[in-house]
Amino acid sequence: MTLALERQQSAIHYFRNLQDQICAELERVDGKAKFHEDDWERQGGGGGRTRVLAEGGVFEKAGVNFSDVAGQLSADFARQLPGEGTEFTATGISLVLHPSNPMIPTVHANFRYLTKGTTWWFGGGADLTPYYPRRQDAVRFHLAWKQVCDRHQDVADYQKFKKACDDYFFLPHRQEARGIGGIFFDFLGGEWSKIFDFVQDAGQQFLIAYLPIALARMHESFTQAQREFQQYRRGRYVEFNLLYDRGTIFGLKTGGRIESILMSMPPTVRWCYDYRPAQGSPEAELAEYYLKPRDWVSEEVKTVE
Amino acid sequence: MTLALERQQSAIHYFRNLQDQICAELERVDGKAKFHEDDWERQGGGGGRTRVLAEGGVFEKAGVNFSDVAGQLSADFARQLPGEGTEFTATGISLVLHPSNPMIPTVHANFRYLTKGTTWWFGGGADLTPYYPRRQDAVRFHLAWKQVCDRHQDVADYQKFKKACDDYFFLPHRQEARGIGGIFFDFLGGEWSKIFDFVQDAGQQFLIAYLPIALARMHESFTQAQREFQQYRRGRYVEFNLLYDRGTIFGLKTGGRIESILMSMPPTVRWCYDYRPAQGSPEAELAEYYLKPRDWVSEEVKTVE
Repeated sequence: MTLALERQQSAIHYFRNLQDQICAELERVDGKAKFHEDDWERQGGGGGRTRVLAEGGVFEKAGVNFSDVAGQLSADFARQLPGEGTEFTATGISLVLHPSNPMIPTVHANFRYLTKGTTWWFGGGADLTPYYPRRQDAVRFHLAWKQVCDRHQDVADYQKFKKACDDYFFLPHRQEARGIGGIFFDFLGGEWSKIFDFVQDAGQQFLIAYLPIALARMHESFTQAQREFQQYRRGRYVEFNLLYDRGTIFGLKTGGRIESILMSMPPTVRWCYDYRPAQGSPEAELAEYYLKPRDWVSEEVKTVE
Repeated sequence: MTLALERQQSAIHYFRNLQDQICAELERVDGKAKFHEDDWERQGGGGGRTRVLAEGGVFEKAGVNFSDVAGQLSADFARQLPGEGTEFTATGISLVLHPSNPMIPTVHANFRYLTKGTTWWFGGGADLTPYYPRRQDAVRFHLAWKQVCDRHQDVADYQKFKKACDDYFFLPHRQEARGIGGIFFDFLGGEWSKIFDFVQDAGQQFLIAYLPIALARMHESFTQAQREFQQYRRGRYVEFNLLYDRGTIFGLKTGGRIESILMSMPPTVRWCYDYRPAQGSPEAELAEYYLKPRDWVSEEVKTVE
């Protein structure tokens, strides 16, 4: 086996196991519904394993997708990526969890390994989208990602990845962040084993970063109005994914598996004309305080002092 | 007053009155809710009058927007349009009605008058998006638009406008029509008074084409499952508007009034992973029979024969 193939196989193996591990843990936490699995093949090479849990005890919809595809890029798309030629491989995991309870934030994560010609890189990240945010949740989530970056200082830079996340998950037409961010990185190359170590550690960090928040909020009660506010805010998630998300748009416009791509869409959504939350309400605080890029980790330090 | 200004004023006057007329009639049919009106001004020139009726007796959300704007186009956008220079005016009405009852189709219509330099043109159309379609509704809707085109044969061509509508309201990623179509026309120039006559007649035709369908269906009962199917199908409306609709995307990306642009979004929406209707069900028939371009008007002739 060539080194390149060995590396690719290691990444595939890791991502597939991560999907198993995350799904098992999410089923345990959900306590009611199980993941439905679809194995699919891609015309042109490879395939994937899409798992969706619907109408669970905690998760209204949870989608965890693993894929391992290979083939030829269009000349146009190939020009936009590093590496020579048009031959590519891509493997990774992507997930979006939409809890029913508006007190629990929605979360998204994605980790991937790509090759084009003899060039390779990793990409990925995780970001949190709360409806009724708590300061400590935002801090806790960011600290978890800072910790994993700090453990891999040679290849990972929390401040840089945090800013990339804020820049990417932004809705220009609303001048609003999608959520409270997290980390985002792409085209991460260099020393293969160091970077793969970081990505594996980041993959393991996902449940550590998110589950404590979900577990702490899942028994909190909520009103119908709070539920409707959650569905209204989920509209922003839809707007982001269909207007700006590069992966979603690329997938839909180039013949990817539609249901796997749109697995990230919220299960129930509302659009209200010109909704304006009451001044000083938690709903107003969300946009005014939380949906602006903020140095969450330093905020915590201030509190501790 | 110059001829150009006189024409523009006539168009503005007509569209503004059409908004009044349509809103008054929709309130009468709805019987419960009233339109809320927002007057707005556009940085750069002009403004509009957005009217939204929410949570009505018939309409879960009805948005009727009038606008009359003027200013400078970006050089890039100007190149894509007929006429010289970058100076433009645009006036028109656009509306989307989302009934609560899934037996009533959603409808969209838009009529507009644009000038760029000394060049002018009209555009517009109307299209129907049913959830539980009836053949006679599709035929009735198309016949209404064929009749108005036939009354203005010098400038309007039903077959051509019908095909343009089918081509435009199409979701390539689903290989599916948004609805059962209607008519769509753009860059309609020539003899001004003849075209304006046609557009005015088409504007008057909107209620004639749609209301009989809404009135015939509004007292039909429906189940929660049928309501959820409607919300699921509305997801396709969102996908079309955010992924493909030129007006929506242009407006959002160039700083239009967000709430007026997104007034067309359905009030409540669902995305279900890999939903597949039971074979032979009305839900299956919708995609298999109705959401493929079809010569509705000729179908009727066959029935009559």
